[in-house]
This record gives sequence, structure tokens and C-alpha cells, in this order.
Amino acid sequence: MATTIPHPFSDLTIDETTQARDIVLELHPGTVIDFRAIYLLEPPKVDVKPFLELEHAGRLTDDTPRPARLAQVRYDVIGASKKYEYHESIIDLGALKRVGHQIVGPEYHAGLTVHEFDTLVKCVKNSTLFQEKLKSIQLPPGFEVVVEPWPYGGPDEADGATRFFQGLCFGRDASSGNPDSNFYAYPIPLIPIMDARKNEIVRIDEPATGGVGDPLTGRTHQIAIVNHCRPAEYVPELLPSGTRRDLKPLTIQQPQGPSFSISDSNLIEWQKWYMRVTFNPREGAVLHDIRYDGRDVLYRLSTVPYTDPRAPFHRKQAFDFGDGGLGHAVNNLVLGCDCLGLIKYFDGVLTKADGSAEATKNVICLHEQDNGINWKHTNWRTGRAAATRRRELVVQFIITLANYEYIFAFKFDQAAGIAVEARATGIVSVVNIDEGKTAPWGNVVSPGALAQNHQHIFCVRIDPAIDGHSNTLVQEESLPVGMDKRSNPNGNYYEVRQTPITTSTGVDLAPFSNRVFKIQNWSKKNPVSGKPVGYKITAPPTQLLLADSNSIQAHRALFAKHHMWVTKHKDDELYAGGRYTLQSRREIGGVADAAARNDDILNEDIVVWSVFGLTHNPRVEDWPVMPVEMLQVHITPSDFFTGNPAIDVPPNTDVGNKELRNGCCVDKDLAKHTGP
Amino acid sequence: MATTIPHPFSDLTIDETTQARDIVLELHPGTVIDFRAIYLLEPPKVDVKPFLELEHAGRLTDDTPRPARLAQVRYDVIGASKKYEYHESIIDLGALKRVGHQIVGPEYHAGLTVHEFDTLVKCVKNSTLFQEKLKSIQLPPGFEVVVEPWPYGGPDEADGATRFFQGLCFGRDASSGNPDSNFYAYPIPLIPIMDARKNEIVRIDEPATGGVGDPLTGRTHQIAIVNHCRPAEYVPELLPSGTRRDLKPLTIQQPQGPSFSISDSNLIEWQKWYMRVTFNPREGAVLHDIRYDGRDVLYRLSTVPYTDPRAPFHRKQAFDFGDGGLGHAVNNLVLGCDCLGLIKYFDGVLTKADGSAEATKNVICLHEQDNGINWKHTNWRTGRAAATRRRELVVQFIITLANYEYIFAFKFDQAAGIAVEARATGIVSVVNIDEGKTAPWGNVVSPGALAQNHQHIFCVRIDPAIDGHSNTLVQEESLPVGMDKRSNPNGNYYEVRQTPITTSTGVDLAPFSNRVFKIQNWSKKNPVSGKPVGYKITAPPTQLLLADSNSIQAHRALFAKHHMWVTKHKDDELYAGGRYTLQSRREIGGVADAAARNDDILNEDIVVWSVFGLTHNPRVEDWPVMPVEMLQVHITPSDFFTGNPAIDVPPNTDVGNKELRNGCCVDKDLAKHTGP
Repeated sequence: MATTIPHPFSDLTIDETTQARDIVLELHPGTVIDFRAIYLLEPPKVDVKPFLELEHAGRLTDDTPRPARLAQVRYDVIGASKKYEYHESIIDLGALKRVGHQIVGPEYHAGLTVHEFDTLVKCVKNSTLFQEKLKSIQLPPGFEVVVEPWPYGGPDEADGATRFFQGLCFGRDASSGNPDSNFYAYPIPLIPIMDARKNEIVRIDEPATGGVGDPLTGRTHQIAIVNHCRPAEYVPELLPSGTRRDLKPLTIQQPQGPSFSISDSNLIEWQKWYMRVTFNPREGAVLHDIRYDGRDVLYRLSTVPYTDPRAPFHRKQAFDFGDGGLGHAVNNLVLGCDCLGLIKYFDGVLTKADGSAEATKNVICLHEQDNGINWKHTNWRTGRAAATRRRELVVQFIITLANYEYIFAFKFDQAAGIAVEARATGIVSVVNIDEGKTAPWGNVVSPGALAQNHQHIFCVRIDPAIDGHSNTLVQEESLPVGMDKRSNPNGNYYEVRQTPITTSTGVDLAPFSNRVFKIQNWSKKNPVSGKPVGYKITAPPTQLLLADSNSIQAHRALFAKHHMWVTKHKDDELYAGGRYTLQSRREIGGVADAAARNDDILNEDIVVWSVFGLTHNPRVEDWPVMPVEMLQVHITPSDFFTGNPAIDVPPNTDVGNKELRNGCCVDKDLAKHTGP
Repeated sequence: MATTIPHPFSDLTIDETTQARDIVLELHPGTVIDFRAIYLLEPPKVDVKPFLELEHAGRLTDDTPRPARLAQVRYDVIGASKKYEYHESIIDLGALKRVGHQIVGPEYHAGLTVHEFDTLVKCVKNSTLFQEKLKSIQLPPGFEVVVEPWPYGGPDEADGATRFFQGLCFGRDASSGNPDSNFYAYPIPLIPIMDARKNEIVRIDEPATGGVGDPLTGRTHQIAIVNHCRPAEYVPELLPSGTRRDLKPLTIQQPQGPSFSISDSNLIEWQKWYMRVTFNPREGAVLHDIRYDGRDVLYRLSTVPYTDPRAPFHRKQAFDFGDGGLGHAVNNLVLGCDCLGLIKYFDGVLTKADGSAEATKNVICLHEQDNGINWKHTNWRTGRAAATRRRELVVQFIITLANYEYIFAFKFDQAAGIAVEARATGIVSVVNIDEGKTAPWGNVVSPGALAQNHQHIFCVRIDPAIDGHSNTLVQEESLPVGMDKRSNPNGNYYEVRQTPITTSTGVDLAPFSNRVFKIQNWSKKNPVSGKPVGYKITAPPTQLLLADSNSIQAHRALFAKHHMWVTKHKDDELYAGGRYTLQSRREIGGVADAAARNDDILNEDIVVWSVFGLTHNPRVEDWPVMPVEMLQVHITPSDFFTGNPAIDVPPNTDVGNKELRNGCCVDKDLAKHTGP
């Protein structure tokens, strides 16, 4: 039966999840258990490495030892008088027993679940405190209140360890009868706070609605609180002038199917690339065992927690990945038809409160796309142009976090490069501002709606395996060299200086020195250049966290202090912002702590963390749904190969586009549409 | 007959070019004239503005006064004893007479022409000096010498005003019988220098071929100079293993034609955008009168000269745009089938030595493409996803400069943003290096071939018209603010500080302060935010010129000292690196001189110059043809509109992709190709 054990990088099946739940239930007889998440605990790398070596060599047999299948199970044990204890258990699915267990102390908060959000909405509606407060404002006829659940940012000292949630409130014009009328256009300055253990609204915060010169706190708003606001619809049927009519179809056809293949449920092969994809509720899509042309490149690639601190609402700061786990916010991609061409979808497994597994459809999509010219050269003597198009393989997932969305994509190209792309879109978070006022902490994007300035800080975790697991991070800079009779007589020489990073640490970008970071394998030299084989990381040199270093924001997002971190690999050390971010007051067990171990990292199994972000001072054009802002980290071979890996890509005219060439390169098809 | 006068932003027709030549020939009786270029001199802005105002208002009549049609004619007058004089004349094609004339002094050099390059190749072949020197090396049987013409960099002091060209030499293995066998793999360390007035090879430079520890100059090479080099083919039929076979077709279909329309020969309208495109031999594609939804955005948009200084060959530095004029290097885009979908091509007019006009086909292409998600929001309450795809309009041209190519594209999106993209590809320039050596000034990318480290510095000239011609450049930064009981009690506030630039100058990027530049019209306020309407420029914060500030490189590329320049508009001030770059020793009349006028530029007709570049330390993967490296400058509305201009883009499923949706969102089409 050995071969029926799934691959170590396969997500738990629904059966495995159910098994894990049942074992936990048996271990806690006579108690009420609320499950938060059940998913694969990836096996230790030391167990996976020998397995992968055999697999890559085609030498797996039924008798090959396999790493244990482990489930991590997260749940609340609810005792007498509603006393909550948060537990984490590890279940060995082969041995059918618990192999790890901890009760997490009350100073940490488990990630939130969707049902906690549902509870908040119900509590607010039923709260007499809130109903009372609502009387202090006046909504136009036909309007109803919408409550948007949010984590309770970084709590104040006085809040102690109580688990809170907050609700942002908006007015919805229900008169259209359309449930997707945009309520964000009508912000209401009431923020109910729920004690999540008592399921009780304990306080209503009333943020100021003033602007330049007004005090930061204290009510200034009018009773007719949203009368100066204006509709801001985005669903097509509610647009006052409808949609534009002059956009003609552009379709992508792949008559012979895609160039990729899928086997063993999650093994993707495409254009010499080889990788496995998994999905988990904390990170979304994760890629494993990434290889090119039979050589190891990366062991694991994922995006990880980020933070979004806003002014002046100091608790309006979300660890969008860590607080809730983005898996629960993931979009079912069949909605909205997000891609063109032939798409392969992957499903995920989520967990209900009773621990039962819930298959969630189409959480990751995979498709090919064209991205312009790949490489080109024309021999001007002969007029012969050699050119290829750049085909990319895209592994994409999209998450919705209340008002906002992120689109994450891993893009693989034929020249053995990888780009990790983050697109930000969705609806910017707004608060009420009095009529006619402006404010230094944001921009009025719609009458009465102030979009607050904020930052999005992302991190990409890169666990490399450059021709093996012993790798070194090298900083490379291009530096000016003074004119000098002997060594630089004409002043045009510049020095390319390489500095290996010897100890785990955080480092910063320096674009004006063209600073890049290379991950090298010093035991393998490129036979052409004589230099160690490597990949380079080119990340956008963006602004780091602006919050004062003594602020709670800064304390709970230590990872956002540097552009790049390098640490020594440790199993299950996956989250830049730490394991428990919800309501945290400082980052614990994140990448800063990992770096602080001061591990030797020369020729070691290292992990590289790339931090980048977006300082988002909203434009009016970001309203009501913002056009995508894009950021990309590039992971590119640098003396890893003996030449351009894409040199053997056939010209476009040789891959079945001949019939199109006649359409595209001759004007006759255009003539009837575009005039002379 | 008034209406037969072309639009002020129309290139000269072949007839107009011929008229201009004939007038010049009549003015120089009894002399020999070698024409270099004849093309439109754009009319003064003061004449164009009232014309455009009437045109935009739909009030042009046959009697509307039109700016004069002017041709600029550049030519050598060759007198007795081959004395060359370089002339520039301006011909008024309405009045049929010369209205401007200057004889350019010998301290400036006219841009090179293709026939000068042809002459160099001939001269080298016929040079006994060169043939003699060739005997000092030994090429393998079946090899022949290929001469690659180059400008003579920045000359030494002693070179005086003599017009020189240099040839880089390579060996070509002619035994394959394929004329596109890659000769760059066999660099020969001989550089013949031609006196371009005498058409005579006056010297053969012999660069060193040493590496680490070797002297910078002096011959070290073996007689069998390329025996340690190896083939590096890139045309598919010469690849040792052929092309990969697993790439399946991906085609783009536009069954209803493109969404753009072309009228009046060069007026492009697409998705509320409106613009005219022209082509000239110095800048390639230039866009004029760019408007969105009936409002002025830019008056003129172009890419402009850049430089490429290499070490250690101090004269191997090319102003790729200025030296030759890229128009002559432009690719005919039908070769290589560079784009997918329905393409509209524009032709250009170039000038032969006898002044006759030569139509050059397909120098600019125009097409639409899809670039992923445009904007998306899912209402998690209702599960309703609203999403649109991002369609872009691409105006593209490609130039080949000996070994190297650049792909320039202006990309317009539906959210009223513009991206100017530069892609670098082609073959990196290599020189011979002795067997087994490495060198600090480059990377060995193929045995015996050292690719030298170098920089590419680009500039985009942005002549704005943000709701009119009186504009102001404002620097905006996001700056930390210390925690403070009264104004920043929680330390999460940051300041967005705007600083107008009052005087023409060069300024730099500062990504860690999130510094961006906005072009604003202070006489127009956004009705929603109350801020001036504007567009922001987001340029890549790349390394500036590394050469020592006392070097010739630095002197002749003053524009590369800053990331951004802002100057007061002056007619015909178009070239960041100055008008005469060939063999220059310093930049004259470039953007640095324009800025040095210290013009007041608050609420003025300003021009913004965005400088960015690529420090290119070659990888082995860049050989033999490098995968594209991409850089983009973004020009994005910032409080110019009252909302997201793309909010009315219809969902993809509403623009004829319904039939595809069934193909793309359902796995059945994949099943037969991709396994389970």
C-alpha cells in the first residue's frame, strides 16, 4: 500500500483531514471544540531531501521510505463558563496518533476565522449600545447600515489579552434593490468593538470627521452624516452611463491545448520547468521543488504576511495574511473569469468550525500567456531577423480582504527566470470627512469619503536550492572608481564588488549602487565564466515602514525594517511577521527573530526573504475600484547556465501561428475596420 | 487648396521631401551634395496651439490659417579637393524658399549615415595596413573577417576635429554556408580606424586580451587568436539540437477587428485616447497631441539620446540615438513577425545620399494586447465579483545598432495611464580574452569572448499639456513623523510633503522617501479632492552614470547626471544629449544647458525629461542573444479625473469572449491534454 501515500508535497486530502479531526475529537472527550484550520504540516527537509533525490533520479519504488504525513490541527477547546483554550496538535496520519501538542497561551491570538466575522456582524445588529448610538446620526431614507468586520489592529496596553474585533460602518442605499450597490461611498463614523469571548459589543468608537486644522479626536460630524456623500457604483448595471461600447473582443486560442502538463495531481511541467503546487489557508499558493532542465533551483517559494498601517486610525492596521489566513479570503476564480486562454484550476481544502473538510473550488489558476518579445537580433548585413515571443506560465491566486483585493502570481519564463508579482486592486478604505474639508492624512476621493494614506508591505519567502542545498547570499554592487593613470586612465572603469553575507541578518537595497543579491552555490563553477552558479534577486527598491520605530506598528512588523533578510533554514519557519499576528503588540518568531540567531550562513541551507511595498497615497482615480498597481520581484539565473536558456525557443511562426501571421502582418484585415 | 496641406503633425510626404531637395540643389549650383537627412521641422508651438484649439473644437475650415510646412535638410557640400562643409537648411514648402541656413562648424560632427558605415567596411578590406596586421594572427580554415562599424566614441584631445570611424573585427565561420552564422563568438583584437574625409585607414588599434593581473594595454594574444572560442549560434537552423518541440501555439484573435481607428493617415483613436504618431530618423516614433476624453494630457512624447560607455575600451561609447539617428537603424517589423493579433503598421521616409526619398515600410507598429486584470472587487457578502481585463494599446518600434537591439513601446491603458517601455536585447558586445583568463571589467560569456560591463542610459522627453500648457512640476515625498502626543500620538502618521520646482534644474529620485514627481495645472482644481489636476511620473530609480566626472564620457553625457530634468519649453529643443553627439567631447545644447538657463518654471510651458538606465554586467545567460531586460516609466493621472477612468470598461464576458469562457473556465478542454 506504500504507493498510495501521497507525495510529501501534496496537500491533505479530504479523507486525511477528516482522519486528523477524528483523532483530535477522541483526544478531547466531553468538551466543545471549535476547529480553526486543519492542513498539511510539511515534513522536515531532512526527510524530504533523500526522497526527492530518488524521485528526481527516477528510482522511487513502493519500498522507498516516505516522510510521515502530518496534519496540523488548530482549534479552540471551550470549557466550562465559556473558557477558551487555543490548542495546536500535530497528527501523524500514518501512525494515526498525535505526535505534537501545545496549548497556546492567552498572550497570543489564534488567527481569525470567517465565523468570527459573522458573529461580529450579528452582535452589532443586536447591540442596544450600537442602536442607541445610531440615533445620534441620520441616514437618508432607504439606507441601511453595513458592518465591515476588521481585526482589532495592535491593541492598546490597557486592552490586555482580551480578544477584540472591530466593525467599520457604512450606509447602503437599498433603494436600488441591487445588493452590490457600493456602500463604501457612505462611511459612518461609528466603530463598534466586540469582545470576542463574550460576543458582546463593549464600546463604540467615534472617530473624528474633521480635516485641516481640526483636532485629531472628538466628534465633529453633522447629524445627517452621509448627506454630502455621493454614489460610486462599480457593477456595470449600476453605472449611470453604462459601460463603454467600443471595446472589441480579443480572444486567445490554444488549438493544440496548453504547453504544460499536470500529473500526480499537483506536479506541473512546462518548458523545462518542474514544480509542485499546494494551497494552504495561511499562504495561499505555495510552490515546491522548483527545477529547470533537471537541476534544482528553489525548494519552496511563497508570499508571506504583510502589514498595512493607516493614519490616523491607529488600530486600523491589518496583517492581511497573518490575522485571518488568506486561504479563507481566496477567490473562486471561476467568478469574474479572471484569465484568458486555457486555464487549469486547482482546488483547495478549508475547514469548517465542526472540523469537517470543505472543498473550495478553483482557488489557484494556471495558464500560459504571451508577454511580448523574448529575444531578437537582426543581422543588418543579411536582413535576417531572429526573434522569439516570450511565453510565460502563470500560477495565480486572488484574495479579497473586506474592501481590498490582492492578485498574486508566480510567473515562469522560458529563459529560466521567475517573477513574483503582486497586484493591488479593490476599494480603498475610506472614512467619513465633513463636507468641504481636506485632510493631511489622506485624499478626498468621493464627497465625504477620505481615503487614508497607508502602506502595503509584502514579503516573498525564497527557499533556494541552487544546484543543491548549500548556498550563499552575495551582495553585488557597481561602484565608481576615480580616474587613475595606471588602472583607470580614462575614468570609464567601474568596479563590480561582491560581498558575501556571512551571518543571518537584514540588509537593504541601494539602487544607486545597482545593488543586487545573488544566491550562489560555491561548490559549482560555471564552466564558461568560471564563476559560481547562481540566481539573482532583483526586488523593487521601495520605501520601508514609515511608522515611528517606537510605535506598535513598527514593533509588530519588524520584518518591514529591511528589504531583504537572509536566515538559516529551519523547518516550519515560514512567516516573516511571525506565527501569531492577530492583535499582536510586537513581532515574535518572525524573520527578525530568525535573523537574530546570528547563524553562520556561508555554504548553508539558507532562506532569503524579499520585502517590498507600496506607499499608497490614494488618487481620486483609485475610486471606486482602483486600477491595479503592480510590483514584481525577479529571480533570474546568473551564470547558472552556459547560455541563454531560451535560445532554443522556436520562432513564433513555427508554432502554428502561420495562419495568424497573414492576419497580423498584412493590413488587409485592418482595412475594413480602421480606414486608410 | 488649403485643405490639402497636411496636418502640422504629419510627416513630410515623399513629394514634400523631393521639393525640399530640389530647392536645396538649386541653391548650391555647381557643387556636389551628399544628403544626410530631410524631414519635418515641427512648427513652433505658438503656431500650433491655436490650430489645435480649433481642431479640437471641430471648427477647422479651409480658411483656417495653418502653420508653415517646414523641411529641415541636412547635407554635406563637397567642394574642391574634397573639402567638406556640413550645412543645415530649413525650407518653407508653402513659400517654396529657404527660410533658414547654417554652415555647422568643423568642431561639430553631423550624425553618421549608413553609407559612411559601408565605406568603412570597404576601406578596411582594401587597406594594406589592415591586411598587413592580419598576418599577425591566424584564423582557422574557412574563417573570414567581419568588420562591424562603430562611431569613434569620444575622441582623444590629440584627435582634433578629424572625423573618424572605427571597426570592431570578428571571425566568421563561412564553412556552414549560412550567412547568419554568429561571428560575434570570434572577436579579433584589431580595431581599424578610418579618417572619414580621406576614406583611409590611418591606424590599427590592438586592444589587450589579458585578464586579472595583466596590464591594461599591450598585445598579449596568441597568434591562433580565436582557436579557443566556440560557436554560439542563434538562428534556429544552426542550433545543434534544434528548437524545443513542446511549445504549442497561442494565438490572438480579434474577430471584430481592433478597437482602435486610424484616420487622416496618423491620427489614432482608442478607448477615449486621441493622438498622432510621426516617425523621424533621429527619434523614431514620436507621439503628439495626446488627449484623453477630450482633455489635453501631453503635447509631445518621445525617447531621446542615451549613451553606453564601456570599460576598458574608452572609445567604445555610443550615443545610439544621437550618433546615427535611430531612424536608419529601425527594423522593418514584418521581418520576424514581432507582434500578435491585428497589427497596423506605419511607414517612414528616409533619405538617400542623392536626396531622393526612400519609403521604408512598417517602421512603427500598433496593436492591442491584454495585460491581465485591470481592476477587480468581490463583494464577499453576495459573492459577486466585478472584474475587467486590462487592454493596452501599444505603439512600438525596434532598432538594431550593430550587435544590439532596443524595443521601445508607448503603452496606453484604459485607466488613462501611459507606460514608456524600453526592452534591451540583441547580442552583447564582446572582445577577445586569452584562454582561461577572467577579467574584472566584464564576464566571459563564451570561451575567448569577454562581455564588457557597461551602462545603457535612456531618456524620455515628456512635453506635457495637463489641461493646457501652463504646468508646474511638484516633487512629492512621504516622510516619517516622530511620535508626538499632540499630532501623532500613536506614531503611525506620516507626512506627504509637496515641493514645487520653481526654476529649471535637474533633480534625483529618492525611492526610500517614495519621491514621485507630479505635473500639475494649478489653475484647475479637481472638484472632488480640491487638489490641482495632474499626472505623476513614476520612473525606475536606477543607477546614474558611473564614469568619473572628469572623464569624456561624463562630459559628453551631462544629461545622465540626474534622474529628472525640468526645463522651460523651447521649440526644437528635443535632444537630452544635445544635437551633435557624434565624436563629441562634451554635451552641448543638451538638457543640462537648457536647465542652466535658470528659467522660472512655475505655471509655465515646461518639459520634463526622465532619465533611467541599466547597469549591465553581463551574465552567461545573456549569450548569444540576451533575453529582454525591461524598464518602464509610468505617466499616470493623479487627481486629473473624478474617478477611475476605467470603471466603465465592460466585463470581459461582455466583449464577445463568452464562447471562450466556456473553454477557459471549464477543465474539459484541458483534460485531453494535461492528464488528471
